[in-house]
Amino acid sequence: MPHRTSITDETPTARPSPETRRQQILDAACERVRQSGFHGASMAEIAKAAGLSVGQIYRYFENKEAIIAAIVAQDLAEMRDKFAELERQPGTLRDSIDDHLPEAIDKCFDERRAALALEVVAEAARNPKVAAIVRSADAQERALARAMMERDRKPEWSEAEFHARCEVVGLLFDGLLLRGVNHPDLDRDALTDVLRSTVRHLLS
Amino acid sequence: MPHRTSITDETPTARPSPETRRQQILDAACERVRQSGFHGASMAEIAKAAGLSVGQIYRYFENKEAIIAAIVAQDLAEMRDKFAELERQPGTLRDSIDDHLPEAIDKCFDERRAALALEVVAEAARNPKVAAIVRSADAQERALARAMMERDRKPEWSEAEFHARCEVVGLLFDGLLLRGVNHPDLDRDALTDVLRSTVRHLLS
Repeated sequence: MPHRTSITDETPTARPSPETRRQQILDAACERVRQSGFHGASMAEIAKAAGLSVGQIYRYFENKEAIIAAIVAQDLAEMRDKFAELERQPGTLRDSIDDHLPEAIDKCFDERRAALALEVVAEAARNPKVAAIVRSADAQERALARAMMERDRKPEWSEAEFHARCEVVGLLFDGLLLRGVNHPDLDRDALTDVLRSTVRHLLS
Repeated sequence: MPHRTSITDETPTARPSPETRRQQILDAACERVRQSGFHGASMAEIAKAAGLSVGQIYRYFENKEAIIAAIVAQDLAEMRDKFAELERQPGTLRDSIDDHLPEAIDKCFDERRAALALEVVAEAARNPKVAAIVRSADAQERALARAMMERDRKPEWSEAEFHARCEVVGLLFDGLLLRGVNHPDLDRDALTDVLRSTVRHLLS
């Protein structure tokens, strides 16, 4: 998630819009979670990192879970845009994916992005409130992915098989997040070729 | 990782062996990391959970990273046993995997196991000492996996392609860890069928 806004973009007298403030808090929270994990990102520490008072933070977010929900929603919106772009391309999805695969792989190998995503899922594994947030986002993401993969669907696939094929395509990208941490210097070109053939297998 | 030993198994006068003590500390550390994450598992808290003094813990492990290294090594040893079992089976690996896949998938969906594994990789994404531990273990795991997959190797695959195919087989299991948190109630039978066909594709 890039820094979309920064306090230094403002003229000294300008009062930041609520949207700017909100994004400033989310960016600070992402940075805290990346650096120190979920437990190292208290509302007080997020406020400090955002250059705001704790009171100001609470005006925008009720608690840390609400901040995590907003971060996850931001990611989902980004994915929705990406999927919409893929859907606008002619031909089958497996052909469109060919062109987009290197960029998608690079994103999974982005250290900052992976650090945040893995921390959120690790927290979800022990915190039911965070689990509910990521599961709801995952359900929306799966629905978007299935809508996108619909045009490659074969009539002989049952509903369950189609869902499972979509699930495994998604799972490849989940796995890449861990590969980026565990084996960052792998041969990315060779990996891309094998992943391309795997996605084709799953969508054919 | 199951509790292999327990202090209650000892008679009151028996002095636990160093191996028993060591395992007791590792089990307590796994439990602390699962419940509270890496930052919630200080040496003091691990000692408390193990029913030992902090001084006793330091007699076995120099620091928290040494405990994590031992936990990761324990996992690697378990995998080595599993791979050895698969290697003893006749025929191609893709045939042997067919039988073992449901069990391997269930393991990835085991909440306690996933919580620990994801916490360790999330910590590795921000802590260079933990990153070095998991990367070294991952390199050993890849070498074991490649040795196992050697008999399915096709002469037309380059070295790079063979490595990438092995990498993607491993990546499927990495991805399953995240699926278990993000979508625990998915149709596991349908998923197993699609994963089976995907592994066959990768090894054929």
